[in-house]
Amino acid sequence: MKKLINQPGAFVDEVISSIVDVHPELRTSPASKRVVTRTGGTPPGQVGIVTGGGFGHLPLFLGYVGGGLCAAAAVGNVFSSPSSEEMLIATREADSGAGVLHLYGNYGGDVLNFELAAEDAAAEGIAVRTVLGTDDVFSAALPEDRRGVAGLALVCKIAGAAAARGDSLDQVAAIAQRAADHTRTAGVGLSPTYLPTTGKPTFTLADDEMEIGVGIHGEPGSERITIETADAVADRLMDAIFADAAPAAGDRVALLVNGLGATPAEELYLLTARARARLHKQNVTVAHTYVGHYATSLEMAGASVTVTTLGDDLAPLIAAPAHSPLVRF
Amino acid sequence: MKKLINQPGAFVDEVISSIVDVHPELRTSPASKRVVTRTGGTPPGQVGIVTGGGFGHLPLFLGYVGGGLCAAAAVGNVFSSPSSEEMLIATREADSGAGVLHLYGNYGGDVLNFELAAEDAAAEGIAVRTVLGTDDVFSAALPEDRRGVAGLALVCKIAGAAAARGDSLDQVAAIAQRAADHTRTAGVGLSPTYLPTTGKPTFTLADDEMEIGVGIHGEPGSERITIETADAVADRLMDAIFADAAPAAGDRVALLVNGLGATPAEELYLLTARARARLHKQNVTVAHTYVGHYATSLEMAGASVTVTTLGDDLAPLIAAPAHSPLVRF
Repeated sequence: MKKLINQPGAFVDEVISSIVDVHPELRTSPASKRVVTRTGGTPPGQVGIVTGGGFGHLPLFLGYVGGGLCAAAAVGNVFSSPSSEEMLIATREADSGAGVLHLYGNYGGDVLNFELAAEDAAAEGIAVRTVLGTDDVFSAALPEDRRGVAGLALVCKIAGAAAARGDSLDQVAAIAQRAADHTRTAGVGLSPTYLPTTGKPTFTLADDEMEIGVGIHGEPGSERITIETADAVADRLMDAIFADAAPAAGDRVALLVNGLGATPAEELYLLTARARARLHKQNVTVAHTYVGHYATSLEMAGASVTVTTLGDDLAPLIAAPAHSPLVRF
Repeated sequence: MKKLINQPGAFVDEVISSIVDVHPELRTSPASKRVVTRTGGTPPGQVGIVTGGGFGHLPLFLGYVGGGLCAAAAVGNVFSSPSSEEMLIATREADSGAGVLHLYGNYGGDVLNFELAAEDAAAEGIAVRTVLGTDDVFSAALPEDRRGVAGLALVCKIAGAAAARGDSLDQVAAIAQRAADHTRTAGVGLSPTYLPTTGKPTFTLADDEMEIGVGIHGEPGSERITIETADAVADRLMDAIFADAAPAAGDRVALLVNGLGATPAEELYLLTARARARLHKQNVTVAHTYVGHYATSLEMAGASVTVTTLGDDLAPLIAAPAHSPLVRF
């Protein structure tokens, strides 16, 4: 394991500290250095969106905090949930009187702690709604059982735009749920992540293997295959998305091709070309294409493809301006 | 070697094709698919800046084409110079009557071919000046003998801003030269790149080794050492920059912490924190901090630190707006 880190136990705090130092648009909460918010706070009367989860996935989650995006993020240790207390602090920070949407990925620890935080926030008089990212088609048969991965980026952008235009909490929650329901992601892993504290890999693969559907914490995927061309891999990922929820001819979609960490931009653009060609072949309009790092797993090699189908309600929201200091939205 | 690619021989053309397809602000020249320009061309009366070099370093070089940046880039094969013909086509594309600046890294093949292209362009009546990126402090003792690496990003931004405000060719060239003269980069490699055509690594390292000063094509560095903490590595890189051309107390600088491909954002922010602390300790003002991928070597792990000292002439130029579809400037 080769990493440019200092004390493994200080890793998360040191990175957060550097990020808020470099980007004055972000700050940590006076109540917790594991809660990152917009420096200016949530504009009065706007719904605040709180996201969060384990660390090691930059720009997910704290890089989704910004203008037209989320209001705050709670940050856990590497690959482990933040505490409910940190989520509650993030909820208080995000609330400007219009209530708070909890918007995060469907993982057991995160769900448990965010539910506790929502109860505590309600007891303090803060209205809270919850929407889960469940976009990983390979992670379970039933959509509601699926894990959330890179698709959360597009759901945050859509929901953030609804909040920024002044939608009510119920409206923002409904928009976010619709965006989540229309978002599908399929990924492939070529190499594991090594945990900073233990030096252990999240999974192992042979020199000529890739794993279709592997999770961003090394959760097992659907199959291990011998390495294939970019086109063949993109076809597998698009096939999985189409089999689960194919956009119809005439639909408009947003496409996100996400690198998991170590895969270079050159390779992402090859996957992008094939994914766009597959969508065009179905007479689907690709209204927005995002290519880059949106949800990583430290130095894991691999990529994922996300498709969000945009109805007339979601299309103007995903096109609205949004600003994160860490990633293009 | 695990790569998400198709036919190795088609790699460069396929990636360029995808990039211009995804980003309508960019296009390839009708005269060569290896020449990328701004779709709208160089605004009349503005100096056009042409950059270029080998492929496999995204966003360098074609990602430096954009508003307030370069006008065109000539793209070679992986790690090899474009032809002088492609550079001449880029020069013709970039010229709107005010002349063209050739601004690229100091590598033998690139220099040879750009010099030929400049002669041919002059014969066609296009005025050309040349400035070389020579920022890699580890690559040679004499500044003029050094290779160009990530620092070219900041030189392109500064020169692009001078061109955009309407400076003459001589003025843009002088500004670019001053920016290049005040830019220093020091880097470290943790793992090699594998060439798509041969599958061969650009260099080899033991499991616990890193190489200080290794080049972005695997050129030998100054020393191989056992892996160290992020702080210790940042100190080595900053020591090398300070030993060569230390900013003075009271100076303003731009800092660029660049990932070479596989090194995650989390680690780059640790290097950034230490580099900023070192500059602050010298009473140097860090006016701009850029963190991310600016000049890569495909899937190489490692990073570089660049410091550009900004006088009153360069400070407003680096702060001017610039837009690349591939990277934040």
